[in-house]
Amino acid sequence: MALKYPGGKEYRGNRPNTARQRAADYANRGMTLEDDLNATNEYYRERGIAVIHKKPTPVQIVRVDYPKRSAAVIKEAYFRQASTTDYNGVYRGKYIDFEAKETKNKTAFPLKNFHAHQIRHMEQVIAHGGICFAILRFSVLNETYLLDASHLIACWNEQEAGGRKSIPKREIERCGHYIPLGYQPRIDYINVVENVYFTV
Amino acid sequence: MALKYPGGKEYRGNRPNTARQRAADYANRGMTLEDDLNATNEYYRERGIAVIHKKPTPVQIVRVDYPKRSAAVIKEAYFRQASTTDYNGVYRGKYIDFEAKETKNKTAFPLKNFHAHQIRHMEQVIAHGGICFAILRFSVLNETYLLDASHLIACWNEQEAGGRKSIPKREIERCGHYIPLGYQPRIDYINVVENVYFTV
Repeated sequence: MALKYPGGKEYRGNRPNTARQRAADYANRGMTLEDDLNATNEYYRERGIAVIHKKPTPVQIVRVDYPKRSAAVIKEAYFRQASTTDYNGVYRGKYIDFEAKETKNKTAFPLKNFHAHQIRHMEQVIAHGGICFAILRFSVLNETYLLDASHLIACWNEQEAGGRKSIPKREIERCGHYIPLGYQPRIDYINVVENVYFTV
Repeated sequence: MALKYPGGKEYRGNRPNTARQRAADYANRGMTLEDDLNATNEYYRERGIAVIHKKPTPVQIVRVDYPKRSAAVIKEAYFRQASTTDYNGVYRGKYIDFEAKETKNKTAFPLKNFHAHQIRHMEQVIAHGGICFAILRFSVLNETYLLDASHLIACWNEQEAGGRKSIPKREIERCGHYIPLGYQPRIDYINVVENVYFTV
């Protein structure tokens, strides 16, 4: 039901009136890939579609104060390198595991966004029958792709052998799967997972 | 093959000779359930048996210093409550998810060791076809059990409705599965998972 002011004028709140205004608002929201994925995963959990969480940032805690009558305060800690990917969970009984990264580069995705531990972890997940991929965003172009981990691992191994330090965008377009941006959910990657891994 | 000294005497290394000595050694190791599980999961990964990790402790970071020429230092942070269980990963393609807790109580496992978020998470994992359980240790008795999440959830819901605040040990013995302690791996819970969830 639309709310109306006395006199019958519809209440429009602060909604933007023009497409340009809406686009500007969207750009100004400054949503990172992480924000988008957190919102998407929450949507999936609420709707009972999948249970996928981002893992907490790994931190090495060195010193903690325990003040009287209030919460413990961590006074000294350091960021540790993750030994796995950032996201995992379950969809239709299968183990889902992925890393999400964005680049400002318009033509290729630099492999320096990943580190060796994560690539080894992806190899292990594949070996154990899990579903493993990367979600890659070209942030300037606002294009997001799902790339199966096997492709990422192959590119990584080529790099280790002296090859290219990035994956050309045209290769990601060819081997990966475009994820259209939406409103709810913002990045419907499970729809892509369903098509790629479950539909034979 | 047993190694023998010249003269035929068997090499026994530093192995303790008496049961009392072995028990004392074990006690002195002061291993927590978390230590045991971390070592076990490392063993599983190295042997290619399963890929299961403990999630990092969730921390709310408030203030970070970036000193010149050295690593960023977290100067103020707080412990957050976990919204999921602590351990998850993949075994034979299936999603594995569990929480591990120990109690000094000898006759029952207090439900206050869990919180509502974790129980709701377990319900979601089951609904999505994941394998979900708790590893419960009675630390004074040095007995460890695997209890399927469905039992834990049932006990939790009874408590919410005004029922018992703990699960009697005899019920855990009856409904759960004893995990013998070993040397490598220390807690071979995957062996139990194989028997309980994969062997029909």
